[in-house]
Order: sequence, then C-alpha cells, then structure tokens
Amino acid sequence: MLRTLTVPTAKRTEMIDVTDRVQGLVRDSNVRDGCVLCYVPHTTAGITIQENADPDVVADVLYKLEALAPRSDPRYRHGEGNSDAHIKASLVGSSVLVPVRDSSLVLGTWQAIYFCEFDGPRSRSLHVQLLAG
Amino acid sequence: MLRTLTVPTAKRTEMIDVTDRVQGLVRDSNVRDGCVLCYVPHTTAGITIQENADPDVVADVLYKLEALAPRSDPRYRHGEGNSDAHIKASLVGSSVLVPVRDSSLVLGTWQAIYFCEFDGPRSRSLHVQLLAG
Amino acid sequence: MLRTLTVPTAKRTEMIDVTDRVQGLVRDSNVRDGCVLCYVPHTTAGITIQENADPDVVADVLYKLEALAPRSDPRYRHGEGNSDAHIKASLVGSSVLVPVRDSSLVLGTWQAIYFCEFDGPRSRSLHVQLLAG
Repeated sequence: MLRTLTVPTAKRTEMIDVTDRVQGLVRDSNVRDGCVLCYVPHTTAGITIQENADPDVVADVLYKLEALAPRSDPRYRHGEGNSDAHIKASLVGSSVLVPVRDSSLVLGTWQAIYFCEFDGPRSRSLHVQLLAG
Repeated sequence: MLRTLTVPTAKRTEMIDVTDRVQGLVRDSNVRDGCVLCYVPHTTAGITIQENADPDVVADVLYKLEALAPRSDPRYRHGEGNSDAHIKASLVGSSVLVPVRDSSLVLGTWQAIYFCEFDGPRSRSLHVQLLAG
Repeated sequence: MLRTLTVPTAKRTEMIDVTDRVQGLVRDSNVRDGCVLCYVPHTTAGITIQENADPDVVADVLYKLEALAPRSDPRYRHGEGNSDAHIKASLVGSSVLVPVRDSSLVLGTWQAIYFCEFDGPRSRSLHVQLLAG
C-alpha cells in the first residue's frame, strides 16, 4: 500500500533525515522482506542516502551541489529562478530503494535517508511503497 | 512482464517525455498497485523525472550537464568522442522507479518521465517492468 | 532473500565490475522474472551501470567525478578528509535496479554493473535483493 509522509522544510536548501519515519511505515506494513521505495513527487526536491553521524557531511554535499549548479546563472532560461533546484533534483534523483529484512530497513552503519529540499521552505510529500521480495 | 518501448531520438542531446507511453503499458498490465521500473539499456543515455510545464527547465538541465561534462575535454581517454555522454548517463542514472496505484502512475503535479539522449540521434530502447506492491 | 557480496577494493577510487557475481545470485534464486536491486550499504561508495568494452570509459567517469568533487577543497567542513567520496556517492547513487528475465539480467549490449569505490581501499559489501515481477 502506498503511504505518504508530509515533510515540512524550513530553508531554501536542506537535507532532512526521514529514516525513522520510513522505518515506522515499514514496521507497520505486512511486508517483512523485500524493499521499500521512497519517492519524491516534486521536481525541485530529491532524496539520497548519506551519513548521519557528522552533520558536516550533509553541509559539504549541499555546498558542492550549489557549486555545481549555482542559484544564479545568466544562461538559465527558466523564469522562476529555481533552475538550480531542478538540476540538483536530477543529479541526486527522485527516489531511493532500500532493502527490508524482518520488517527493518537494511541500512549500513552510517546510512540515513535524507529528503533533499532544493527550493524551500515548503510543505513537501514523500511517497513510501513497500515491495515484497 | 517486461515490455520494451522504442524511443527514436533526433538530436545529439535531448530529453523526450515518455510518460504517456509508460502510462499506457501500466494501464495494460495486470498490476494495479506497486511500482514500475523504467530501465535504459544504453550507456550513453539515461532517464530522469523532471518538470514538463515549462520546456525551459529541460533546456536548463541539459545546459548544466553540458557545462559539467563538456563534449570536448583533452583529458578524456575514450577514443569514440562520447565520454561526456557516458558521464552524463552515470550522473542522471539509467533507471527511474515510479509508484503505481489503481493502474496509474503516481506522479507529482509537474512531473514527467524523460528519456535522456546524450549521444544521438539513434533508435533507443526503454524497458518497462511492473512490480506488484 | 537478501544476499550479500563482499567486494574488496584495492585503490582509493576505482570501479569494479560485479556483473558476473550478481548474475550468479540471480541464477541461484527462485525469481525467474522481475528485477534485482543492488544496494551499497556505505556512504563513501556507490554503484552505476556503465560500458565494459573500453576501460577508458570508466577512467573518464572517474576523472570527471574527481574534477567535479576534488579530494581537497578548503571549503569542506567534514574532518575526515573524504567529503569528496560522500559527494560522489550521492551523485552516482547507492543502488541500481536491473530487470531480470528467465533468470538472466536484462542488460544492454555494452552494459555492466560497477561498484564504485570512492574512499578505498577497503572491504566493502553489496546487498542483492530479487523482486518478483
């Protein structure tokens, strides 16, 4: 069954750890083994797996994405001023798929699931779909 | 069941909206709820989710990918002259996975599925596989 | 069933073809048709699909990732000196999903599955999960 989380964001650009909320949906589902799809239904936000031990890692990822696709670039054509957010979304991707075993996410020791806001603050959605193995 | 779409491309680099064709395969399948894998069996093409309302968004994504991995770079070793296309494919990715509910793609308001040609024009393939939820 | 491959790496940065090992697990599973998730449980490694015919392609991908996210950058905050590896992992992604038909990976002619080491050498893991279609 498709479930949807609401993810409020507070800054234009930030990465929000949604691991515990996804794990909660996995635990409540009837799929014990398989995987879970986390899908972002937006074109100026994305999702990625990253380290959650040192917050500097997330800061460095956001810094580099901004360096690669700066907010302002005279060659952007799109009139809404958020072309950088669209580009970052395609670089990072709009979904992650994580294995599930015994109703638990099979994440590495340092891994967390991060919702990536690139054009906030907004109220965002995250779709979560379990797939049996 | 695995189905394959043929995607003809007309330029060296372009993004082609394949949403309606994928939706057609989803509607004709016997999977009502789950997700659909769209897989590109090429190494100089990719696939991404992006906005379909303003074509300038796609133009900006292609512009930035070219800025990050220009077609010509004296440090490329590969002799075929399409190293940029291989790099863009790994940055964007070779598949997207989209939730399906009631035999419909669960896309956000502005989302479309774009086949990304990085070394055309060619006749390309796109594999589509339904997965039950 | 979730299976785990051990992937030893020999350099700080390299791409290792794991296609045959994944194919072996697919052949030994009871899923004939569907797809296979290859998931990297690390935050300084990734996985991608690329060409395996000319090793220069992989060299060019690694060269460009290093150009986009150099190992040394005075603006990185993370103290371990491997921010570039984290960034590359988020750009390339931590999983690939490949269709399976008749117990065989449905890869394009030139495609191979590459484990991407960005902060080696280490002993790495790769989770492999079959999903029925």
